[in-house]
Amino acid sequence: MKTLSFMILFAVILTASPIRSFADVSAPPAILKAPPSPKFSDTERQAELAKRRAAVAAAMVENSMLILFSAEPRLYTNDVDYVYRQENNLYYLTGLKQDGATLVITKSGGNITETLFLPKRIPVREAWEGKMYSREEAMKVSGLKTLVDASERDAFFKTLKAKETFSAKDGSAAIAGTTGTIYLLLPDSPQDRDGSREYRVENEFSKELTGVKVENAQPMFAELRHIKSPYELKMLQHAIDITTEAQMRSMAMVGRAEWEYQVHAEVEYTFRRRNADFWGYPSIVGCGANATTLHYVESQSPVVKGQLLLMDVGAEYEHYTADVTRTYPVNGKFTKEQAEIYQIVFDAQEAVAKATKPGVSFAQLSQIARDTINDGLFKLGLVTDKNSRQVSYWFIHGLGHWLGMNVHDVGRYGAPLKAGMVFTNEPGIYIREDALDNLPDTPENKAYKEKVRPIFEKYKNIGVRIEDDMLVTETGVEWMTGKLPRSIADIESFMAKASKEMPWTARSVRGGTLVESAVAGMYR
Amino acid sequence: MKTLSFMILFAVILTASPIRSFADVSAPPAILKAPPSPKFSDTERQAELAKRRAAVAAAMVENSMLILFSAEPRLYTNDVDYVYRQENNLYYLTGLKQDGATLVITKSGGNITETLFLPKRIPVREAWEGKMYSREEAMKVSGLKTLVDASERDAFFKTLKAKETFSAKDGSAAIAGTTGTIYLLLPDSPQDRDGSREYRVENEFSKELTGVKVENAQPMFAELRHIKSPYELKMLQHAIDITTEAQMRSMAMVGRAEWEYQVHAEVEYTFRRRNADFWGYPSIVGCGANATTLHYVESQSPVVKGQLLLMDVGAEYEHYTADVTRTYPVNGKFTKEQAEIYQIVFDAQEAVAKATKPGVSFAQLSQIARDTINDGLFKLGLVTDKNSRQVSYWFIHGLGHWLGMNVHDVGRYGAPLKAGMVFTNEPGIYIREDALDNLPDTPENKAYKEKVRPIFEKYKNIGVRIEDDMLVTETGVEWMTGKLPRSIADIESFMAKASKEMPWTARSVRGGTLVESAVAGMYR
Repeated sequence: MKTLSFMILFAVILTASPIRSFADVSAPPAILKAPPSPKFSDTERQAELAKRRAAVAAAMVENSMLILFSAEPRLYTNDVDYVYRQENNLYYLTGLKQDGATLVITKSGGNITETLFLPKRIPVREAWEGKMYSREEAMKVSGLKTLVDASERDAFFKTLKAKETFSAKDGSAAIAGTTGTIYLLLPDSPQDRDGSREYRVENEFSKELTGVKVENAQPMFAELRHIKSPYELKMLQHAIDITTEAQMRSMAMVGRAEWEYQVHAEVEYTFRRRNADFWGYPSIVGCGANATTLHYVESQSPVVKGQLLLMDVGAEYEHYTADVTRTYPVNGKFTKEQAEIYQIVFDAQEAVAKATKPGVSFAQLSQIARDTINDGLFKLGLVTDKNSRQVSYWFIHGLGHWLGMNVHDVGRYGAPLKAGMVFTNEPGIYIREDALDNLPDTPENKAYKEKVRPIFEKYKNIGVRIEDDMLVTETGVEWMTGKLPRSIADIESFMAKASKEMPWTARSVRGGTLVESAVAGMYR
Repeated sequence: MKTLSFMILFAVILTASPIRSFADVSAPPAILKAPPSPKFSDTERQAELAKRRAAVAAAMVENSMLILFSAEPRLYTNDVDYVYRQENNLYYLTGLKQDGATLVITKSGGNITETLFLPKRIPVREAWEGKMYSREEAMKVSGLKTLVDASERDAFFKTLKAKETFSAKDGSAAIAGTTGTIYLLLPDSPQDRDGSREYRVENEFSKELTGVKVENAQPMFAELRHIKSPYELKMLQHAIDITTEAQMRSMAMVGRAEWEYQVHAEVEYTFRRRNADFWGYPSIVGCGANATTLHYVESQSPVVKGQLLLMDVGAEYEHYTADVTRTYPVNGKFTKEQAEIYQIVFDAQEAVAKATKPGVSFAQLSQIARDTINDGLFKLGLVTDKNSRQVSYWFIHGLGHWLGMNVHDVGRYGAPLKAGMVFTNEPGIYIREDALDNLPDTPENKAYKEKVRPIFEKYKNIGVRIEDDMLVTETGVEWMTGKLPRSIADIESFMAKASKEMPWTARSVRGGTLVESAVAGMYR
């Protein structure tokens, strides 16, 4: 039955005034298309990568060596892997996306060497898995000049352990042994001491090294990658622009969606249409109470008119990920209660942005957000004591995080802000249904729960997060997500306009009259 | 400029005969929408899972224990994981998708016990990561009756190693120690002896067991999962139906696509719109010469009119994956050379299907495909000696593989076919540009290359694979992918019809006249 109704076409005359209608549809569209991807010449890219490698070499101690391994492929199931993603720091220094490459940088007596071990092209493997870099292509991408076949890597490791000099078979490269420092990327998360998640190969390799000092290269890269270059910012801005389009399209179609996964589909369709790598983290699309779960990724609930939909999504482009959250009403209009909560979060964001400039600390910004939300919730009655921990029952996470090649990017939180740092400004309020029940049963909590319960019932299951990507500039801050509507008024007027631009309905002009028709073949 | 042209609407009167046009558009659509997902009652699901567990227990030797661990989350980068996917065999026996669950089945003196260790719900974790199963929910999903908190799992392992009986703290469960056999899923791929890809936890655990016989549980599951139950076939058919819709939509829009990634987007949009888990393997969308690379996953080349596009994609639904390939002309019409190659592959598929029935071996089917292609290429002149290896220069892979919870599913290839087995029937011919150059320079090859070169030039860069999912029945075979056009004539007529159903153009009826208009807001 559904397939039959799939084709039923019906025409509606929209308006009695053909001229006005025509003017309406020729106005600029509300949904902004992501601009073309940023383009760089070979020279520009090579210069950028060379600059990064020089910065790393400058940070290395005298008489040292850095070894970066490619990421291991990640298993999906059995013999199927996820689509390959290069290790961030190797990519940061080489731009190479291929598995099996190893970069070695040495520093000794003021002399820097850069050597890349690269797998040789294998026709049979190419027939199965696709094109591998030729030597020339890898040189062109990375700007590196010394390439050695990856089959010689084990021989190099042998000389390294013996503290002898390695010479490539064809004599084109030599790497002096060292008794100094060897930098490796090593696992440093408390959950990953053994490298069972990331840097397993490096971790195993480090155990085989004796008579040298093994240093974790991560702090060095964290320092460098914390400040984004103009080149990096163009990549990141493109990821953000794709995400902006995805958010806009979703706001435009949500009124006709029945399930969260349909909105989710629209987001990731946009990512792929705009040739993003894909996402930087699994998309979060939660309606109603699901918006009160921070990392809700199932997208299995109905989309319900009258409720809010929270969408926290980020396209990844050339390893840089956006991270953007909007919370908007399914039917395009906030209720009074939704608007009250939303406005507090909005105000917190604004206060943070106003205070952002070089020299300020992230902790100060976090405090500003917390204070604003504390004030706002006190006014609503959800906080009864501004000097208590109550605000943290509703604003349950931090203000945000550094953003870059990881969604939770490298960088120290203690350091004062500098121009070129990018962070997410993402306060949120979550009136979780079980929030009061989960408070420990102390006498204070009992009194608080009793007092707050009627107000809690009013706001129950509302979850609001607004998240923007902020670039610290010399004088203040730039909203990299600035094109995406954010205030209540802007979201409502955008949704009204944008919902008419999505292809459930098509508009055409015939005999001076605007005709609106359902679109055959479109998803229902 | 692009955003302005985005909204330009133009109307075209399609035909002078309004009545005929109206009849046309009310015909049933060519693009088939995937039917609603299969539904099972709790009783049906529990009965199916209980039956599977009983079959596993029946296959276990006397005085033995099976331990199944949940899959480890897979790292994307830093603290971001891919969306969680359960280990297939644990899912096969429990239907549970949550991380951290462990299933223990014991068999002793005719007595079978089933115990599930399940993490307790943690409100703070749920606020971040989403809902965890309650005991009641896990019981309802799996039909298991004995649940122990996962925090007691280490205590159980301790008693196990000591060959003592484990008792749950609340007395609700007991698991007797064993000196017999312990079944674990262990790595068995030559590339994964240490479990660095799959079954790492099991591999480590197996080393800690002494005084028992550790057996790899994989052959047992391979035997059971090789024959699909009617319940499993419904899941698999749904994955195939979603994939059929995705293939159809792609054929309908390919004529307007500029880049492979746009077609790729359409496929995965359909997967998500139809609420597939997602894919069973990364989508392959290759135009022109890219079709001659078997696992081309980049989707970065232009879509060119006059060339073929090869699309090898499979939605995954409830862990069951489709695996379907179609190769079709971008402009909807095969050239003479494309059709010649295509027809050989088609004939090979048909010959395989005709020969398929219980008792036949997969090797026999492979030989039939190879013979058909050998004959066909001999007629074209790409094979000059039918008794040589020449056919393997162009048909470079096997006939296919078992299909199920893995795209390359478990099951022995030596065994004769039985009803309930599912395999892919996927012959292919790839005229790779470098194929002749990569042949070793023997005198025979030299003569062959010289003779075949002019014919090779005619077909160069054509790649054709056709892949259907075949269910072995009691009497022969069922094409599970039967709704998707496959012959040259069917593909051409489908594409002509379906391309009018996609929402680049909308059709509406006004004043008895059919009006076709460009759709505002649609992707260009």
